[in-house]
Amino acid sequence: MGNYAFGVDVGGTTVKLGLFDLDGRVLDKWEIPTVKDNEGASILPDVAESIRKKMKEKGIEEKDLVGIGIGVPGAVDAEGTLVGGSVNIGWRPFNIPKALNAYINVPVKVANDANAAAFGEMWQGGGKGYRNMVAVTLGTGVGGGIIVNGSIITGATGAAGEIGHIHIEDNETEECGCKNKGCLEQYASATGIVRLARRRLAEDDAPSTLREGNLSAKAVFDAVKAGDKVAIEIAGRFGRYLGKGLAAVANVVNPEVFVIGGGVSKAGEILLEFVRPELDKYAFPPCRGVKLALAELGNDAGIYGAAGMILCR
Amino acid sequence: MGNYAFGVDVGGTTVKLGLFDLDGRVLDKWEIPTVKDNEGASILPDVAESIRKKMKEKGIEEKDLVGIGIGVPGAVDAEGTLVGGSVNIGWRPFNIPKALNAYINVPVKVANDANAAAFGEMWQGGGKGYRNMVAVTLGTGVGGGIIVNGSIITGATGAAGEIGHIHIEDNETEECGCKNKGCLEQYASATGIVRLARRRLAEDDAPSTLREGNLSAKAVFDAVKAGDKVAIEIAGRFGRYLGKGLAAVANVVNPEVFVIGGGVSKAGEILLEFVRPELDKYAFPPCRGVKLALAELGNDAGIYGAAGMILCR
Repeated sequence: MGNYAFGVDVGGTTVKLGLFDLDGRVLDKWEIPTVKDNEGASILPDVAESIRKKMKEKGIEEKDLVGIGIGVPGAVDAEGTLVGGSVNIGWRPFNIPKALNAYINVPVKVANDANAAAFGEMWQGGGKGYRNMVAVTLGTGVGGGIIVNGSIITGATGAAGEIGHIHIEDNETEECGCKNKGCLEQYASATGIVRLARRRLAEDDAPSTLREGNLSAKAVFDAVKAGDKVAIEIAGRFGRYLGKGLAAVANVVNPEVFVIGGGVSKAGEILLEFVRPELDKYAFPPCRGVKLALAELGNDAGIYGAAGMILCR
Repeated sequence: MGNYAFGVDVGGTTVKLGLFDLDGRVLDKWEIPTVKDNEGASILPDVAESIRKKMKEKGIEEKDLVGIGIGVPGAVDAEGTLVGGSVNIGWRPFNIPKALNAYINVPVKVANDANAAAFGEMWQGGGKGYRNMVAVTLGTGVGGGIIVNGSIITGATGAAGEIGHIHIEDNETEECGCKNKGCLEQYASATGIVRLARRRLAEDDAPSTLREGNLSAKAVFDAVKAGDKVAIEIAGRFGRYLGKGLAAVANVVNPEVFVIGGGVSKAGEILLEFVRPELDKYAFPPCRGVKLALAELGNDAGIYGAAGMILCR
């Protein structure tokens, strides 16, 4: 058995890499560019080369490695095959462990990048110590990663955890990116919060600092912290939508904790205060009391989770 | 290794028992009364005695048994402990395998009764051949059992699958049994369908056979089959609510199939026709196309699932 693992997070512009020890500490982390030419044909060879270089630098041999974990932007089956390819980086469907093993022959595990990040938060982040967790990413969209008894749920077609598209509002007139109307993502993502803010500001002439400068999720929560009443109302609406959506998730999988990450979560604990009472209100009584925590690993969650798939058994 | 297993389903009035072979066929099934006196102290001894009697009758010895599976009305943890007791039958929290092993020393597995029934439908019923399934029970209430990769999800507090209490309607004025307003159960249970029917009939004077005789979920679907336009509208509203609720579940766990059981499901395939288009409309596109099937085992699902926990690995 080895003493090290690499965690790799393949993104649309860069590939993040990390070297981890058996205790889950990151010993080194770095990035390489994602070369998308020729359907991303050089991405895996580039990853292998970068890992080999790091191994040489650190005096690590193949026998010292437990393995390599990789998160990729697409749906992955149990054998590590990218079943539907990945439009983000140009990959067609192929078996990732076999392809990487052509360059470096150690155990390889693969997961969808969002699921890997969720696993990372459970292993070393905001969900540490829990085995039943839902990771919620509030970014451009709203994503989710469901972990049951310590394992990621991928679902029949790799689409488990698509909590951003839970229908939550019957009276919505605008379309979500998925073409439905009234998805959670339309209210709880960064752009969703801006929509809620625009709508609230248009309702009347109540004074608010949000009427000056650029509207953003950050601006809304900054104004909340400064005591702006209109901003507090907007955050209340956001909290009701997100709480209602998470309550549905709680009724289905009954997790111990929701770990909230993504750009919007940078608002900090105050964000959770708007969600908590609504989650507890809308959840079925035995599913109440589920904890709400902030993600802790930020952009490193993916490399942590990828390494965790190899090291955490 | 043995050749037989017993499946036991402990209910509030009777305990159902079944003798199964390794191929999952039920060789015999019968019932004994549930004696609730003295906090249900004699229930397990009665079960053991009934099993011993059947073994003697069939010439089966302990070494011929793979084990005994039991479904019980309460939350059960991984060790088979009834964590919160069971108000239905008077049991306090205790470890069921240990207690039963005092009378008959073979492997014992225990699950919540609804989860056991879900497992039975996957093993030998409407979900046969699938490994990712959600069982939906439309009865007095609306219940669910979530199976991921062939295993039942129990959740952090044994409350996973409480899909009947997903919030689905913001404009509800009446309270659900759980004290919230607008739960799926208020529209998709047997009593929920009657409520929908009453409300629709009160809206105008449109002629309908439902204005005569007793209103029931069965009466509504019988009238649908006879072409009653008002009944078809009511079934449409039911289908929209249930489809919307199941779409949320599909987005979270991305199952291959929903298996619909309980009294309401006796309406048959026609019921599914009202749900299918709404489910496909409200689900996130990659979660669409999930199959809808009817449960097949009726009241025997519990003994099948209990035996299946022992025989199906």
